[in-house]
Amino acid sequence: METKVIVDTMWVLITAFLVFFMNLGFAAVESGFARAKNCVNIMSKNFVVFAASSLGFLFLGWGLMFGDGTWLVGLKGLFFVGGADNSPAVGEAYKGVYSAISWTGVPLWAKFFFQLVFCGTAATIVSGAVAERIKYIAFIIFTFVMAMFIYPVVGHWVWGGGWLAKMGMFDFAGSTVVHSIGGWAALAGVIMLGPRIGKYDNGHIKAIPGHNLSLATLGTFVLWFGWFGFNPGSTMAADPNAIAHVAVTTNTAAAAAIMSATIVSWLLLGKPDLGMTLNGCLAGLVAITAPCAFVSVGSSLVIGLIAGVLVVLAVMMFDRLRLDDPVGALSVHLVNGVFGTICVGLFAQDKITGTATGNGLFYGGGFKLLGAQLAAVISVAVFVFVAALATWAILKAVIGIRVSREEELRGLDIGEHGNEAYAGFQVFTTE
Amino acid sequence: METKVIVDTMWVLITAFLVFFMNLGFAAVESGFARAKNCVNIMSKNFVVFAASSLGFLFLGWGLMFGDGTWLVGLKGLFFVGGADNSPAVGEAYKGVYSAISWTGVPLWAKFFFQLVFCGTAATIVSGAVAERIKYIAFIIFTFVMAMFIYPVVGHWVWGGGWLAKMGMFDFAGSTVVHSIGGWAALAGVIMLGPRIGKYDNGHIKAIPGHNLSLATLGTFVLWFGWFGFNPGSTMAADPNAIAHVAVTTNTAAAAAIMSATIVSWLLLGKPDLGMTLNGCLAGLVAITAPCAFVSVGSSLVIGLIAGVLVVLAVMMFDRLRLDDPVGALSVHLVNGVFGTICVGLFAQDKITGTATGNGLFYGGGFKLLGAQLAAVISVAVFVFVAALATWAILKAVIGIRVSREEELRGLDIGEHGNEAYAGFQVFTTE
Amino acid sequence: METKVIVDTMWVLITAFLVFFMNLGFAAVESGFARAKNCVNIMSKNFVVFAASSLGFLFLGWGLMFGDGTWLVGLKGLFFVGGADNSPAVGEAYKGVYSAISWTGVPLWAKFFFQLVFCGTAATIVSGAVAERIKYIAFIIFTFVMAMFIYPVVGHWVWGGGWLAKMGMFDFAGSTVVHSIGGWAALAGVIMLGPRIGKYDNGHIKAIPGHNLSLATLGTFVLWFGWFGFNPGSTMAADPNAIAHVAVTTNTAAAAAIMSATIVSWLLLGKPDLGMTLNGCLAGLVAITAPCAFVSVGSSLVIGLIAGVLVVLAVMMFDRLRLDDPVGALSVHLVNGVFGTICVGLFAQDKITGTATGNGLFYGGGFKLLGAQLAAVISVAVFVFVAALATWAILKAVIGIRVSREEELRGLDIGEHGNEAYAGFQVFTTE
Repeated sequence: METKVIVDTMWVLITAFLVFFMNLGFAAVESGFARAKNCVNIMSKNFVVFAASSLGFLFLGWGLMFGDGTWLVGLKGLFFVGGADNSPAVGEAYKGVYSAISWTGVPLWAKFFFQLVFCGTAATIVSGAVAERIKYIAFIIFTFVMAMFIYPVVGHWVWGGGWLAKMGMFDFAGSTVVHSIGGWAALAGVIMLGPRIGKYDNGHIKAIPGHNLSLATLGTFVLWFGWFGFNPGSTMAADPNAIAHVAVTTNTAAAAAIMSATIVSWLLLGKPDLGMTLNGCLAGLVAITAPCAFVSVGSSLVIGLIAGVLVVLAVMMFDRLRLDDPVGALSVHLVNGVFGTICVGLFAQDKITGTATGNGLFYGGGFKLLGAQLAAVISVAVFVFVAALATWAILKAVIGIRVSREEELRGLDIGEHGNEAYAGFQVFTTE
Repeated sequence: METKVIVDTMWVLITAFLVFFMNLGFAAVESGFARAKNCVNIMSKNFVVFAASSLGFLFLGWGLMFGDGTWLVGLKGLFFVGGADNSPAVGEAYKGVYSAISWTGVPLWAKFFFQLVFCGTAATIVSGAVAERIKYIAFIIFTFVMAMFIYPVVGHWVWGGGWLAKMGMFDFAGSTVVHSIGGWAALAGVIMLGPRIGKYDNGHIKAIPGHNLSLATLGTFVLWFGWFGFNPGSTMAADPNAIAHVAVTTNTAAAAAIMSATIVSWLLLGKPDLGMTLNGCLAGLVAITAPCAFVSVGSSLVIGLIAGVLVVLAVMMFDRLRLDDPVGALSVHLVNGVFGTICVGLFAQDKITGTATGNGLFYGGGFKLLGAQLAAVISVAVFVFVAALATWAILKAVIGIRVSREEELRGLDIGEHGNEAYAGFQVFTTE
Repeated sequence: METKVIVDTMWVLITAFLVFFMNLGFAAVESGFARAKNCVNIMSKNFVVFAASSLGFLFLGWGLMFGDGTWLVGLKGLFFVGGADNSPAVGEAYKGVYSAISWTGVPLWAKFFFQLVFCGTAATIVSGAVAERIKYIAFIIFTFVMAMFIYPVVGHWVWGGGWLAKMGMFDFAGSTVVHSIGGWAALAGVIMLGPRIGKYDNGHIKAIPGHNLSLATLGTFVLWFGWFGFNPGSTMAADPNAIAHVAVTTNTAAAAAIMSATIVSWLLLGKPDLGMTLNGCLAGLVAITAPCAFVSVGSSLVIGLIAGVLVVLAVMMFDRLRLDDPVGALSVHLVNGVFGTICVGLFAQDKITGTATGNGLFYGGGFKLLGAQLAAVISVAVFVFVAALATWAILKAVIGIRVSREEELRGLDIGEHGNEAYAGFQVFTTE
């Protein structure tokens, strides 16, 4: 076997393992920011979501996303990754039905596994926003819809050779494909569910503190760690200059966003709120995800600084809009997913790692690249929001999506699972 | 240095690090499923077990397992990995006393380290089943016996060129060598110790809920993550097709087992029990461990689905048998270790990754391979169970293996360690 | 791109990711050993410390450490990693201003990122020793001073071509550069801050138990795991023999130290204290960090055994000296950082992995190497301790470094951050 195939496969798999590990991070962040009485439910959701994504993406998602087809969806090799394929052959030597991803010279199952962990991430983003009131069964079914339809369709547009790819839109590691998709689907869920009981009573915004900020912090560390798989791994090849550059832009954006979010929350709230610091980190990471390979380290610093400010303002805005998002998923993934996608159109430079994106607005490229990015932002918003809203609406009509008032007050753990998370501890569950 | 040696060594070490990390997963799962009052003891056991395994396997275990010798045990280069060896030479070029593992072209210490983390895993499996009542010193001594004798002897049979290897038995990553060994040794411990106080009083089975299901969930995520080292790493070479294939079969079995265990527990218990979901995941992973490189992705789906059902039924069965296993280690590692070993004889196909196992029963291979697998199941059961039972019996006679009734009621943390795990929290320790 | 550059870059980045992950470990260990009322503050410190280090090392630290310059500091390419550089060229082919690190053939950003995670580790060591009483803002500013001045200056001496390097001093992975630096800076902080309220009242030493020993244990596992990046990664090249050897010496020292610390605490305290077991592990890891590539596996066993004893005695000694270090950071990082540095002068053998260190005292090398090691120990002690003391003194005079008595009693979480870590739980916060 050719050496390049070996090292590329190692890189793709190892970074995919790191991205897989982000599931733990999401579970820890979400449960840490939620109340103890809903912890079993949250852990269950975050655990099952990757299993459901794995099966859904295997059965249909992969084929819809990467199968040769139209500008809209894949049509060949749809089911069970079953199409013709002679990977790891690349370029003209490639013979098969998954042409759009034939640029990376690794075995088919390596491609599948790497793409699967990304699909799982998009699905798990929804979990946090709908926490503490969603029915378990409704969430599981929604996850299958995400992994089998919503995610792969948009994925086809951007990474599967569809119309946005053809238009010259670039999303290196998924600010749009993963984070915006997750964010728009989450927004639809938040609207359909309504806020948690007590959150906006009598015109006041009530802070509902998380039960374990240690857990939330550890979870954010895990996500930061996993992002070193997410972004550098998206090269899908062990290209030394690219992977080293992406590791540094990723980390620099996170560091800058941590600082700016901490300072802004200190100024606006009077104290450096830990939740804002953590969400600042995630905001920086989400924002740099699309542009990480196309922008300089200096630009990544600027992008991170802005992302950290955006997330604090967004958290406040969503509360004013009475959109109850227990973990700040909308502020992190939706707002900064959109912001990061636009950043490509502003900060990209052809010279960075050799991908010919064209220069962004700030580097003399005019509005061409920026226009493609904005087209993606708008079209993904419309498609995902509508598709998700429809899915939630159908689920609401057929099986219901929200637990009963009594169950919500007592906690979903007993009601949905018959378990409690912290047996033996004195936990106050009322309210 | 030849490129192949470099990439293979990187692969072996990185995957070994992931397997090492599973120690954290086991610690989290076991303590999460146990009560707060025994948490320091459980953490201590899970922490020291890898230290003891490291020293025991270094002193003697490695030599007994991989030293050239008889059909039963290794005899050459027994102590301190001290035999002649010219690794990374392979095949005919290899000159040394560890011939059985000379097929992998990596330095001797890389081989040792990879095998060590597997040995440590087998030893740590015992920990969960004997939790909440075992004396700390007894567990430490038992661990040395596992790492220096019981594990290496069976390991020699299967992976060290012993009689099962010669018979044509295959265990790719250790459903038998790691999980069944751990499981049988655990069963012996459970029998010798008896159930926890109150577990089966007055003919009732009393559920003793774990003190932290968040922790148990995170631990299971870590184990799932670590399994991507465990199974794909067992190639001990960066073979692109094999490692990609194994990553996908491993994940698919886990996903399928999560789903089937969740659904079955939902049907049988009325609600989707989180503990069952988590143990379903582990069951799928254990079951696919032996066959992961020999079976198709479709077969891995079937194996996972069955494993998830088996683990739920096994948990109920062991409770009926009054075998008190606080974390479900027997249901996960023993039952599914045996099941996974048998699956090789049923689902294996020569064509999958190039290892000539012969086809399994379902693919026209008849009973030849299945027979060898069953021989392994039975012989390992007899040897490990008897050896472990004898070891526990001697320990019981000489130093005692169970803490006093008073200590068990109050918690092992104060009694064994003089620490408490959660100072400052209100924890209910009685019962 | 040359294959060697590819595999070396993969190795450097993947191990750097593991070292990054140690931030989570430090956060978990420190918060686990502290009280619940200070947990948000501790998590905040441990989270922000890496962000601050990232920015400080990017702006100036890297240049001061690796820029060509004098025996004392780097002078070229000081700011924003902005000097001329044609990495991955090595040796004579290298043209640039970062000559001291031109021996490793990876891209500049890979070198930077690997060195950055080490800088972050040194900074985070301080956090534990000053916990439960330090002002958040003072800690953040101190971190910038560490990352931009103190760490890079000593780093230049040892790894940047400065006077200790020229003298023939060797520190493979940073017993001095990372752990002693962190330790001396922590000691200065402990002295300037004074002990926590109640710790040494009325001539008694009061044990202040940690709020979550499960968390502390998981954190130690993470650090152990991360050390497989720290030490084997310090080859900065995928050299099979070296990385396999270092993985085994690292693990063996940890295992031996766990055993000796557990046994010694058992003998001295009557019971096997979990905190001592955990700190034993870390002590062994710190001690083997400098010599891991220069000593045999047998020597690593001896070094670990001694380290485990040292850490228990040191914890007792610091308490007698009324130096209040809530997590044992001085005993682990300072005492064993010094011990490990000296071990190079005692146990090193030229033949181990091919680095011509000269033999240590025990292998016929006389006092030459040992003398250089001792020169490093003393000079680093003087420089770092004085520089850190001066920094703390200035901070104390200008903004204050200790929270008010009321805030300390109530907990820093409310006072500094306006958050509480465990909302909904009954936590006893007084004292």
